[in-house]
Amino acid sequence: MTERKNAKAVWVAVDWGTSHLRLWPMASDDTPLCRIDSDMGMGVLEPAAYESTLLALLEPYFSPDASLDVICCGMAGSRQGWSEAPYATAPCRPPSLDLATRVETADARLNVYILPGVKQNDPADVMRGEETQIAGALVAQPGMDGVICLPGTHTKWVSVRGGEITSFATFLTGELFQLISKQSVLRHTLATAGWNNAAFEAGCLAAVEAPQALANALFGLRAEALLTDLDPVEARSRASGYLIGLEIADMRPRWQGKTVVLVGENEIAQAYATALGTQGAETVLADAEEYTLAGLRSARAQIA
Amino acid sequence: MTERKNAKAVWVAVDWGTSHLRLWPMASDDTPLCRIDSDMGMGVLEPAAYESTLLALLEPYFSPDASLDVICCGMAGSRQGWSEAPYATAPCRPPSLDLATRVETADARLNVYILPGVKQNDPADVMRGEETQIAGALVAQPGMDGVICLPGTHTKWVSVRGGEITSFATFLTGELFQLISKQSVLRHTLATAGWNNAAFEAGCLAAVEAPQALANALFGLRAEALLTDLDPVEARSRASGYLIGLEIADMRPRWQGKTVVLVGENEIAQAYATALGTQGAETVLADAEEYTLAGLRSARAQIA
Repeated sequence: MTERKNAKAVWVAVDWGTSHLRLWPMASDDTPLCRIDSDMGMGVLEPAAYESTLLALLEPYFSPDASLDVICCGMAGSRQGWSEAPYATAPCRPPSLDLATRVETADARLNVYILPGVKQNDPADVMRGEETQIAGALVAQPGMDGVICLPGTHTKWVSVRGGEITSFATFLTGELFQLISKQSVLRHTLATAGWNNAAFEAGCLAAVEAPQALANALFGLRAEALLTDLDPVEARSRASGYLIGLEIADMRPRWQGKTVVLVGENEIAQAYATALGTQGAETVLADAEEYTLAGLRSARAQIA
Repeated sequence: MTERKNAKAVWVAVDWGTSHLRLWPMASDDTPLCRIDSDMGMGVLEPAAYESTLLALLEPYFSPDASLDVICCGMAGSRQGWSEAPYATAPCRPPSLDLATRVETADARLNVYILPGVKQNDPADVMRGEETQIAGALVAQPGMDGVICLPGTHTKWVSVRGGEITSFATFLTGELFQLISKQSVLRHTLATAGWNNAAFEAGCLAAVEAPQALANALFGLRAEALLTDLDPVEARSRASGYLIGLEIADMRPRWQGKTVVLVGENEIAQAYATALGTQGAETVLADAEEYTLAGLRSARAQIA
């Protein structure tokens, strides 16, 4: 998007995650003036610091005569965040603005709303932020009956039907890959970057065939490096394939016979598309930022 | 063992691992005078530092008129160790002393032998140190036809028949558990100590039934902690069960119909016995130190 200089915002869309904060000051036509990225995530903020963080970042966008609606999703609403926004319980529609937590601010120019996350009781699971992307997906396809996969550190698979989040599942896969590639004995065996698609697919297929062999397959990469100088990029790609393949195998009942909407056009979403492709699943890629903004826009529309 | 003061050693048994060094100065009747534990493992030593490390620790045990045979197993023989002892290739007998690497020392009182590890070409795998424990097991049961499991950071399952290591498999399981419990988002969910055996067994059974669900089951512990205050000791035990259960499921063809010899009487060996018990497998516990010493003794006996 092109930044419009000296433009004033009408409201602000906010995705406040654990490590990242993203703000979009919005024009009267509901398009963003710009995107502001900050590392003032929930993980580094005391509750008292949220308001001053917003004020410092938004200062150029205030009109002299009006307050700003600030619509937040994400970890700002967690118990360790700014102000707790209690979870809605799936199956449910993505939470609307009337379920949002209002936060009192010292500066009267801010009208802050924090959207709740969604929990699932059995099996226990939680999301904060992804429900707003789901709301955005449903703006585009209100009648969607399918599965949305949101790849990341903790990838989520969300089944949607009749405008509701019917159930979902979260995987530690991305974090496991980071730990294995950076902290384990394999850190010298796995390249820190680079990609070998054939090795990734081989890893996926091995995991689907024998998911119980994961910890042996991972050590095998180290042994191959010692014995036959396994290429570090090949090792990294195969390790990623083992982990994502395991997840694809587990989610088969959720994606079988459906088109999977993969939210995010980055490298990791592409890897999930490749992994699902090895199993004959169809996928479409969707833009994560677009979904987030569509979800926050539809919440803001409920104020009027 | 009782330490015998001022006694002189006839030879020295050494297990030189990555992080730990263990020495047993041995009397003429082949029993240890004492055990010396040191953190001067391979990981912190330059090649030039091995000899001085030995001399400092062994000084009290030298006779004025004789040199000491020093029989080493473990990572001292790796490429990054003192002097490389090339792997024997399975299937093979545990390497005997004639395959050991002799190391020249500046001090003529030391006669150093480093026993080789064992490699397997397909699937690629390696061991250094465990082959000496297998040699020890075969001293007690030369005709053994079965499987020996050596639980640890990188647990090994070794099939033995006709005095040979026929094949083996290594698992990253223990290291994965350490990373998950200390470095991941689960570090606040999992207790650092404590044990709930029912939760561990439940984790094992869940992993055997649905190994592909590992990364989802792990995140589920965090969600249960958030939603229903899951007890941290229960969470820790269940997580351990998921990981060890996966390994037990993978090794079923190796242990099915056999008694598994578990080397090590510590908490982790007990956990493996419990996990195997959930699947109806029979286990016996064996003493790791006894096997190491028996293996080093049988190597030393080949000098005479």
